[in-house]
Amino acid sequence: MIEKLVLPEIRELLAGEDHATLAGVLNSWLPADLASLLQGLEDQEKVQLLRALHGPLASEVFEYLELDFQERLLELMPEAQSALILDGMSPDDRTALLEELSDDRAEALLKLLSPEQREVAESLLRFSPDTVGRLMTPDFVAVRKEWTIKHVLDYVRSHGRDSETLNVLYVVDDENRLAADLRIHMVLLAPLHQHVRELVDANVIALNVGDDKTAAVEVFRKYDRTVLPVVDHLGKLVGIVTIDDVLDVVEEEATREIQMFGGLEALDESYVRTPLLRMVQKRATWLVVLFLGEMLTATAMGYYEGEIARLPVLALFLPLIISSGGNSGSQAATLIIRALALGELKLRDYRMVFWRELASGLLLGLLLGTIGLLRITIWSQFSNIYTDQWLLVGFSVGGALVGVVMWGSLCGALLPFLLKRLGYDPATSSAPFVATLVDVTGIIIYFSVAYSILRGRLL
Amino acid sequence: MIEKLVLPEIRELLAGEDHATLAGVLNSWLPADLASLLQGLEDQEKVQLLRALHGPLASEVFEYLELDFQERLLELMPEAQSALILDGMSPDDRTALLEELSDDRAEALLKLLSPEQREVAESLLRFSPDTVGRLMTPDFVAVRKEWTIKHVLDYVRSHGRDSETLNVLYVVDDENRLAADLRIHMVLLAPLHQHVRELVDANVIALNVGDDKTAAVEVFRKYDRTVLPVVDHLGKLVGIVTIDDVLDVVEEEATREIQMFGGLEALDESYVRTPLLRMVQKRATWLVVLFLGEMLTATAMGYYEGEIARLPVLALFLPLIISSGGNSGSQAATLIIRALALGELKLRDYRMVFWRELASGLLLGLLLGTIGLLRITIWSQFSNIYTDQWLLVGFSVGGALVGVVMWGSLCGALLPFLLKRLGYDPATSSAPFVATLVDVTGIIIYFSVAYSILRGRLL
Repeated sequence: MIEKLVLPEIRELLAGEDHATLAGVLNSWLPADLASLLQGLEDQEKVQLLRALHGPLASEVFEYLELDFQERLLELMPEAQSALILDGMSPDDRTALLEELSDDRAEALLKLLSPEQREVAESLLRFSPDTVGRLMTPDFVAVRKEWTIKHVLDYVRSHGRDSETLNVLYVVDDENRLAADLRIHMVLLAPLHQHVRELVDANVIALNVGDDKTAAVEVFRKYDRTVLPVVDHLGKLVGIVTIDDVLDVVEEEATREIQMFGGLEALDESYVRTPLLRMVQKRATWLVVLFLGEMLTATAMGYYEGEIARLPVLALFLPLIISSGGNSGSQAATLIIRALALGELKLRDYRMVFWRELASGLLLGLLLGTIGLLRITIWSQFSNIYTDQWLLVGFSVGGALVGVVMWGSLCGALLPFLLKRLGYDPATSSAPFVATLVDVTGIIIYFSVAYSILRGRLL
Repeated sequence: MIEKLVLPEIRELLAGEDHATLAGVLNSWLPADLASLLQGLEDQEKVQLLRALHGPLASEVFEYLELDFQERLLELMPEAQSALILDGMSPDDRTALLEELSDDRAEALLKLLSPEQREVAESLLRFSPDTVGRLMTPDFVAVRKEWTIKHVLDYVRSHGRDSETLNVLYVVDDENRLAADLRIHMVLLAPLHQHVRELVDANVIALNVGDDKTAAVEVFRKYDRTVLPVVDHLGKLVGIVTIDDVLDVVEEEATREIQMFGGLEALDESYVRTPLLRMVQKRATWLVVLFLGEMLTATAMGYYEGEIARLPVLALFLPLIISSGGNSGSQAATLIIRALALGELKLRDYRMVFWRELASGLLLGLLLGTIGLLRITIWSQFSNIYTDQWLLVGFSVGGALVGVVMWGSLCGALLPFLLKRLGYDPATSSAPFVATLVDVTGIIIYFSVAYSILRGRLL
């Protein structure tokens, strides 16, 4: 939090345009801290501060900023400054930024780059947006099997400066095909005269340049890596992907799933940056779908209008009963969706889940049913709102709760399995969807239970 | 997926107890692949297979397994085999396993370790469960400022074998206090005669051994690191934490938040492993709380029993109207909770959110209200279910939808702010909670709108 404490001093230096002192203070800071500092400044101060930093540091600080923030800064900075910063960025972070911009804007910025960096940027943008190609950087160190460790160390010392990481080196053959990976600790621990070929084995895990980004996440997880090589269709080494870029993919995925879970189409941008009408449109789609589904409740209720007219007290408990079904359903759905996502449950486990949820639903239903019955019993001692047949009303409500909670738990638990079996994402069976499904059937369960208990007495 | 293809052959070798061939085949595999293979085997085969691997590989494969799975294997393996595997594990992964076990069981296993490893394990278990101390490993390489790069390289070659990572080395003073970190690429790029002191600066980011685990996650995120040093209260370097352990913390947190969001207390174990009654208990708590809250709907409905008796058609639309409020509320809550979690929104933004949600809610409400009105208009051409005053009923339903959707959006969006302001986790304002809140008020809005439109006509 040091960056908050010195903010007034920094602003004073900026106001006084004392660039030498500024540079002296700031060039020893860590990029992440400078990035936090930047967020507390006014627009023009941000531009000034970035200019005060030495070139590579300015680009590094820029990489730590959110994409939204980077976009905004590019609009504020003079072209020459933008060009310098973009030129110094890692190719992978630069691709992520360029793909956020409109085609015209990206085109204009590409023109500002040095010929060399421009070629790199353009070649990366040629890959389809959802592929590994868009995540990778071509800055890595490749070595040969026949080299000695001493040769490798000398080579790294002279050629490794621009590499995104030196934690892993890659062994390629004379046609640049990936043959092995060589983690740096192997190099550091080996005697200097040993040959690379004696250290490596044929076990190399690589991503394909055309692989889906989400598939890459799985490979990183399974093999616990922080960096992976990327090969083209000929097996040639074309780049590397580092874990920080993969974490961004994971975060995007999580947001998409959580938004789906809340019953709305994923926003492409943040809440703050999405224009009002666009957000309304994203929310309207599912809201209308749910509304159309929920209209069936009115249809179902229509069949019981006679019962309600004869015994209006039945309507009193309707919201309570259907919401209990919805809540138990969304609990079950949450548990199962998460367990499926983490691989704790497989498709074939649906029978086990069925029996478990039947038992859980029964117990939870009995619990809520008992509370409902108690409430009606106690209330009816003080008021005649539930008529003098309150015990029968109580049993109707209690019985319906048992049925609705069991049904809700089963629907919530099995719907994700069904969706997964059909090839859809289980997360689409979100709380609102389960609730809608359970609402309609809950009405039927409630009135059927009430009818069979109260028939000939109150109905 | 190669591990699936060779499964039959592996099983044959296991059945034939041909350990030499097995070892020959398997010792060249990657640990992560062996871990997948293991999951397809029967219990006794798993134990046999682990025994066939050479010692360090068996421990490494074991580290790739889920905690549940590790626990189960420990129960199956003979003591001597367990001891060997535990002894070879990374101290941090071993701590994670030991803290899952009962105290007796952990105590018994500790006794099996070599004296040296036992001391390490016990010292790590002395830290409180939620602190960084439980995540760290004491296996790192520390160097001195006055050493040359050549000295560092020689030292790493002779002393680095057990270090968890060689991607970063740490510089300590003569009292073992952390002075700087030294990323390996700095070492690899520097001339051999240079001194460490010329390469490092005073900017070292470290965790404290007593820090909360979740605070550590923030530091990893902010500084984009894959490994961080841990110091005690005197600033002495006591261990390092690597990103794989932090990712486990992130996953646990996400599960907790998602379960909270689904309206249930976080399970401590997986769905499959939680005993039925314990799961029912975890679900019952919130279900009962929600049920008690939802009981207010019956109370609210009680005030309108007269209206329902006079005009039962009003009850028909009740589930539709309150669920629309609930759905719009859970959409808004989802968006805001996520935006707060990602830092896109701050507490002070609540005014902006208020106006945005007021506008969104109005538009969405008008949309649903129009659909509702249309539905009643069309239906009433074919049936007299909505009485001959269907237009008035339609306006009541439509008007109530506008009110309820606006109210739902506002509640869903502002409740997370309120909770955060009061110091609670915004994620507790889950869909079910918002729905319960909106249900009760939705009933009041609906009947108030209906009353003011229909008074003197139908009511």
